[in-house]
Amino acid sequence: MSEILVVGSVAYDTISTPSGRVENTLGGSANYFALAASLYTQINVVGVVGQDYKKEDLDLFKKRPVCLEGLQQVPGKTFHWEGRYEGDLNEAITLETQLNVFEKFDPTLPKNYRQSHFVFLANIDPILQLKVLDQVDSPKFVASDTMNFWIQSAKENLRKVLSRVDLLLINEKEAQQLTGNRNTIQAAREIVAMGPRGVVIKRGEYGFVLYAEEQFFILPAYPVSSVVDPTGAGDTFAGGFFGYLAKIDSAWNLQHLKQACIHGCIMASFTVEGFGVAALRHLDWPMVEKRIADYYQVIAYR
Amino acid sequence: MSEILVVGSVAYDTISTPSGRVENTLGGSANYFALAASLYTQINVVGVVGQDYKKEDLDLFKKRPVCLEGLQQVPGKTFHWEGRYEGDLNEAITLETQLNVFEKFDPTLPKNYRQSHFVFLANIDPILQLKVLDQVDSPKFVASDTMNFWIQSAKENLRKVLSRVDLLLINEKEAQQLTGNRNTIQAAREIVAMGPRGVVIKRGEYGFVLYAEEQFFILPAYPVSSVVDPTGAGDTFAGGFFGYLAKIDSAWNLQHLKQACIHGCIMASFTVEGFGVAALRHLDWPMVEKRIADYYQVIAYR
Repeated sequence: MSEILVVGSVAYDTISTPSGRVENTLGGSANYFALAASLYTQINVVGVVGQDYKKEDLDLFKKRPVCLEGLQQVPGKTFHWEGRYEGDLNEAITLETQLNVFEKFDPTLPKNYRQSHFVFLANIDPILQLKVLDQVDSPKFVASDTMNFWIQSAKENLRKVLSRVDLLLINEKEAQQLTGNRNTIQAAREIVAMGPRGVVIKRGEYGFVLYAEEQFFILPAYPVSSVVDPTGAGDTFAGGFFGYLAKIDSAWNLQHLKQACIHGCIMASFTVEGFGVAALRHLDWPMVEKRIADYYQVIAYR
Repeated sequence: MSEILVVGSVAYDTISTPSGRVENTLGGSANYFALAASLYTQINVVGVVGQDYKKEDLDLFKKRPVCLEGLQQVPGKTFHWEGRYEGDLNEAITLETQLNVFEKFDPTLPKNYRQSHFVFLANIDPILQLKVLDQVDSPKFVASDTMNFWIQSAKENLRKVLSRVDLLLINEKEAQQLTGNRNTIQAAREIVAMGPRGVVIKRGEYGFVLYAEEQFFILPAYPVSSVVDPTGAGDTFAGGFFGYLAKIDSAWNLQHLKQACIHGCIMASFTVEGFGVAALRHLDWPMVEKRIADYYQVIAYR
């Protein structure tokens, strides 16, 4: 079993969906990731919060194998994102982004983080992703995520990140934007040509595409009858994906990457059933195992 | 091995996609269906064409087990559809529909068609679907398709059809429109509550959802790198689906329905690789078997 280092946003979100609205609810890619991945192994979080960050939100991780030593608390307000989902729950409309304490964030890794073998660079400024990567001694497996904003505004640094990661985890729309190719199958090949050994394209309710070693592995999502809020689904996908790999301590193995995708998919299916991190708060291992078994029934063709 | 009766449109289409444009090319749900399903078994076509219908388009079926005795040729012009696909190849924009000879079409089944055990009511006016169904003696398996136009304008007759079929094959957008439910999983359950024992929801490049006997069976589409023209993909899905069932003469068996979906999926993956029926003209059984084997690799998780 290996530890996972994650750098990403820690946030308060205001979210509207057809199911309702929540204000200033706990969010951020690092939180979603850590809540999912800590079901599998030890997580070391790198991030920044403001003075408004609530003690109860720090305490959420007390009973979990999550280290918050790398989570700086500094003067100012915590990162805030406001978004809305309309009929098409696959896509968020960003209404407001307040970077706040993230604006001057300079990640410094606690000494004990530097030996983390698994590193996930969640969706933040590529320059910060690179700064974190520079401080890790000898990672066995590194993956990153990104979003439309960085694809448009930080293409050069994003390319540097891509040349240094084993795998990119990315949304389908953003994979198409990054490559300028509307065909997801071609886009996957083009992303691998940019540097990483593999790519996982997340398709929301349609599942995922893994492309690595010139092979495609494609499966649908777990069928969720009640999608309340898709926020964080991609980050919990990454959490389940990394959690699985780190737990079995597998760096690069196509068979393990496939299983990791299924774990990611299942984790994401829980996230969307509640607002923010609500569904992840009480998630336990038997629930995950049960759903994986159900998932295998759904895709069983023989 | 059983024969399949299909009633549907026989048409000339004008299609624009990002890959180009074709004018007055052979199309229509019955043609796409028959080209796919005739790789499996004997097809009996019911439809109507005008005097402009070309001999070469009738001759296309000469070397195949397709009976055109039920294809009326009457004064007037053949049904014409004009559509365009933009960036999102999953959805056609209809530019023009000329019903022409279809306007006064009154389907009369040749005597030898009446014993067909498998009946596919492709996407046409529900009243015509009912007329055909009334003339079949004792079908073992009946399925229908429909589209947004009939959902809006012929809801009552459509409901009658649904109460008389074993299965509905329908696009995802239209499943949502029929039920008023944006969640495909819920929509599937609601469609089954309307009468059919099962439903197949076609998701274009994302594959399909089969819901029957209170179970979901969901798989992705075969990964196609070059989607030239999605027209007819749904009808060839139905062709592969029915072809498989009729070939093994299986009426209702969940395991067979699952396999039938995979055959539908594979057939559709060929159709989209060329304009109109181009890719289906030279399709043979070894090509189908090869692609099914490739598909099993793509979804293999162990």
